[in-house]
Amino acid sequence: MTSYTIGLDFGTNSARALLVDTATGDEMATSVYPYPRGIEGVFSDPSDALLARQDPRDYIDALDYLVPALLGEARRAGIDPGRILGIGVDATASTPIPVDAAGACLTLDKRFSENTNAYAWLWKDHTAYREAEEIADAVRDSGLTYLHAYAGVYSSEWFWAKAYRCIRVDAQVTAAAGTWVEQSDFIPALLTGRTHPEAIKRNACAAGFKGMYNPSSGGFPPEEFFGRFDERLGLIRRSLPGRVCAPGEQIGVLSETWEKAWGLAGQIVVASGMIDAHAGAIGAGIKAGRLVKMIGTSTCDLALLSPDNAIDSIPGISGVVADGVIPGYHGVESGQAAVGDILNWFVDTVIRAEGPHAKDRAHAQLTEGAGRFRAGATGLVALDWNNGNRNVLMDPRLTGLVVGQTLQSGPEEIYRALIEATGFGARAITERLKEHNVAVTEIVCCGGIAEKNPLFMQIYADILNCPISVTRSLQAAALGSAVCGAVAAGKASGGYEAFSDAVEKMTGIRDTVYLPRADEAATYDRLYQLYLRLHNVFGQKTKPDSLFDVMKTLIEIRENTRRI
Amino acid sequence: MTSYTIGLDFGTNSARALLVDTATGDEMATSVYPYPRGIEGVFSDPSDALLARQDPRDYIDALDYLVPALLGEARRAGIDPGRILGIGVDATASTPIPVDAAGACLTLDKRFSENTNAYAWLWKDHTAYREAEEIADAVRDSGLTYLHAYAGVYSSEWFWAKAYRCIRVDAQVTAAAGTWVEQSDFIPALLTGRTHPEAIKRNACAAGFKGMYNPSSGGFPPEEFFGRFDERLGLIRRSLPGRVCAPGEQIGVLSETWEKAWGLAGQIVVASGMIDAHAGAIGAGIKAGRLVKMIGTSTCDLALLSPDNAIDSIPGISGVVADGVIPGYHGVESGQAAVGDILNWFVDTVIRAEGPHAKDRAHAQLTEGAGRFRAGATGLVALDWNNGNRNVLMDPRLTGLVVGQTLQSGPEEIYRALIEATGFGARAITERLKEHNVAVTEIVCCGGIAEKNPLFMQIYADILNCPISVTRSLQAAALGSAVCGAVAAGKASGGYEAFSDAVEKMTGIRDTVYLPRADEAATYDRLYQLYLRLHNVFGQKTKPDSLFDVMKTLIEIRENTRRI
Repeated sequence: MTSYTIGLDFGTNSARALLVDTATGDEMATSVYPYPRGIEGVFSDPSDALLARQDPRDYIDALDYLVPALLGEARRAGIDPGRILGIGVDATASTPIPVDAAGACLTLDKRFSENTNAYAWLWKDHTAYREAEEIADAVRDSGLTYLHAYAGVYSSEWFWAKAYRCIRVDAQVTAAAGTWVEQSDFIPALLTGRTHPEAIKRNACAAGFKGMYNPSSGGFPPEEFFGRFDERLGLIRRSLPGRVCAPGEQIGVLSETWEKAWGLAGQIVVASGMIDAHAGAIGAGIKAGRLVKMIGTSTCDLALLSPDNAIDSIPGISGVVADGVIPGYHGVESGQAAVGDILNWFVDTVIRAEGPHAKDRAHAQLTEGAGRFRAGATGLVALDWNNGNRNVLMDPRLTGLVVGQTLQSGPEEIYRALIEATGFGARAITERLKEHNVAVTEIVCCGGIAEKNPLFMQIYADILNCPISVTRSLQAAALGSAVCGAVAAGKASGGYEAFSDAVEKMTGIRDTVYLPRADEAATYDRLYQLYLRLHNVFGQKTKPDSLFDVMKTLIEIRENTRRI
Repeated sequence: MTSYTIGLDFGTNSARALLVDTATGDEMATSVYPYPRGIEGVFSDPSDALLARQDPRDYIDALDYLVPALLGEARRAGIDPGRILGIGVDATASTPIPVDAAGACLTLDKRFSENTNAYAWLWKDHTAYREAEEIADAVRDSGLTYLHAYAGVYSSEWFWAKAYRCIRVDAQVTAAAGTWVEQSDFIPALLTGRTHPEAIKRNACAAGFKGMYNPSSGGFPPEEFFGRFDERLGLIRRSLPGRVCAPGEQIGVLSETWEKAWGLAGQIVVASGMIDAHAGAIGAGIKAGRLVKMIGTSTCDLALLSPDNAIDSIPGISGVVADGVIPGYHGVESGQAAVGDILNWFVDTVIRAEGPHAKDRAHAQLTEGAGRFRAGATGLVALDWNNGNRNVLMDPRLTGLVVGQTLQSGPEEIYRALIEATGFGARAITERLKEHNVAVTEIVCCGGIAEKNPLFMQIYADILNCPISVTRSLQAAALGSAVCGAVAAGKASGGYEAFSDAVEKMTGIRDTVYLPRADEAATYDRLYQLYLRLHNVFGQKTKPDSLFDVMKTLIEIRENTRRI
């Protein structure tokens, strides 16, 4: 008898629901809810470019809309909602939300409905950069190991920095907040009705990758550690549980309130939440040896360390978290601070294609033009640091670089060089992973660029010298959450016992695989060495060799490489 | 009694004539002749991007047109052509022309009228790059000093490389050529009627800066030297005189043929020819301490070494030539391979403004936008090597570089960074000059950018930390040639005895002087240090220090520098 799970995916600008056949992974129905508040869901501050907030009421409204819409479509397709076993949820991270003593978001309170400090502090909010540095300094200066899993860096995007920042800047919000909750815990808590601060389940994914939770050192750092910064930060720590919930772990069942609202009945299991990218990795069929790249404006790369190779930290890699992606494995997260954003920058800001169609047309034309060059034929090499470097340098105060321009260098050549730069940045990450026994024998990508830009994918295959494919699903994160729902539901009810079984049955990749071409890969090996030297000389304090040969080599490669 | 001289200026795309009052420098009449042959006067070869030739018949036709037109305008203004004392001529260089045994250009012969090897080999023809290298290698390997004045480099643009190249590739032209003549000697020879190879006067300017003529080593290198490459190259050397003519030296009088054709009478003196840029320096009032910059697609910088500081060579500087610009001084020539061309590249090739008006508008808009930033506010620094580096690295195989891009870096910022890069390149030259006792206490510019772009000029004043002004004349080269005509005519007939007197009376600068601003200059001092480090690490073989601080410093300067 066919059964289904629902994946709920809360992204930056919209939320979506996906109804999935647990046996096949077939996507039976979907609904989308663009956040109505702010600008595409985001509140910014003209006087502070670092600020990005979101009103949590959008999340509640999304639930009100998404599931009825999904069920309506399902019913029209003849699907029996009674066969829905469970719900999985993913959300952006780290997006912490202050909630009151009953677990309600503060923006439901009139006093706070216009105060963005009371909103969700969206992942891309960087207002807490000083607090992040203070936390990292304190850890380092005290010889503590809390940042070991993060290669020594604590990001201004993350939970504790944001909560600390709010304590500093808004006494009212701080006084009203019973605790802070990751968005990926807030929504599951709403669904199960267990919103009381002490009842809220925390997920291993967000806690592990963003919240300094580490089971091998006893969970979250102790209250005393946070109390050093501010007593009230210590109180937030005190509200957190001693253990967190693994992906696919059942944290409760859908509350009666929602059952009634949605016309559902029976014990519908709710799975522990996940970070959206990490759910996407599950939707892309992550397993040992398979690196999953979520390619968007930035990228998030996820891989798994087999238990027999497990290590707790990789230099220059944002996070290594036990059970952070799939239980039983160390999840390894890394990423690039700008990929699609660099191409968009060139089109939107440098050559200024105007209007949405003009932009799409410009990307298409530049891609077509870039495709007429072979590797090395542009004579250019670039660094992909227009938004800093997330990995492996972990340094936001880096910038872009393009070298090799002649008076003939056209926009297609620059565009290609920018694609290649992001590919070299991706290679720097995969090489670092391999050096630390993270197997990378295939790469699966998801996101708009992966789906729409074969040139980009082929360049990546050539640069990374690795077969690259694309997820079958266009909604990998929601699919991954549906997988979590199926695991949480368990085998007895029609779901799965083993996470790996669920992933194998419910996810897949497309038939088209981009294979590396030997001649292009050989040229890219040479160009990557140039990239790496620039990477090291501008990104590290080591004393470099002369770069006198860089321009000469680029010219020589260009002269020896004709256009296709 | 008022007297006049004519300056004839043969540029790349057109020739012009200027009638000048010898007492005041007032420009009384002018005429322009766009070359009708080729594309804007230039013959190129689709299969060889290095080739650029010009049909010398354009020069003869120009003479036929220019002077009658000039005299017509003068007569209409009530000027008595009988008061014309002399003619000066400047032309591009090195633009050597093969001429037959009677000194006629080969293209008058039907056999050669379509053969571009028989044409003038225009200054920007680079087909002889291998021959130039062979000549330089031979000089170096033999321990000879013939390239001492050129800091050890012989350019593919220059006389001997081109003649040698022609010998290699065209036996017919070589057999028909009685000698080769610089364009700046060919035209004065035509005017005086002394075109026979052995009668042709050679000017110190072209011979000194392009032809390895050096009085301190006995003139041109000996026939044996050139015979080592090819006997026929030795024969060309044999046709050259032992001494050359200084600027302002009389080489003869206008031939009867021209007198009749133009309706002139009396002994009209013809001055020794000059290179156009060097004549421009005279028109810009060059004197010790005053650097003259001809700013066009590329730049040519000219300065004088006082006799008491005279040296024969400056490392990294293209040429130091005794009597090469003004008799009694060592003329010092340097330049940048691309200045206007880099800005045009950005507008024409990168952002692709289409159509002539769109291009002008784009330059105007980018300039206006760039003007809203203070020094350092773009966060960018660039190398100006899109067309290689002429000085002080003397390396054509270098390319451009831009560093510091963020996702907000707009075209105005990049455009400003490109202007600044050329300014830093200019500073690298002036600093080198100063290190070798070439005084640079003021800078006078000419060319379209200098006249039309105050932002460019102000940035240069700030970067070079030196007052910068613009020549009064819009036709500095033709004016300089008129000055030479006045000197050649001599004081007795109403001209001048001393070159410096002629320059002082006949030339001038505009009232607007761009003065360096202390705060901007201080920021540019810091940015120039970054430029210089990039310059040295990419342009030299020296082992560099880490560049880790480059991006950090650019960010710091940007953050501390608000928009204006």
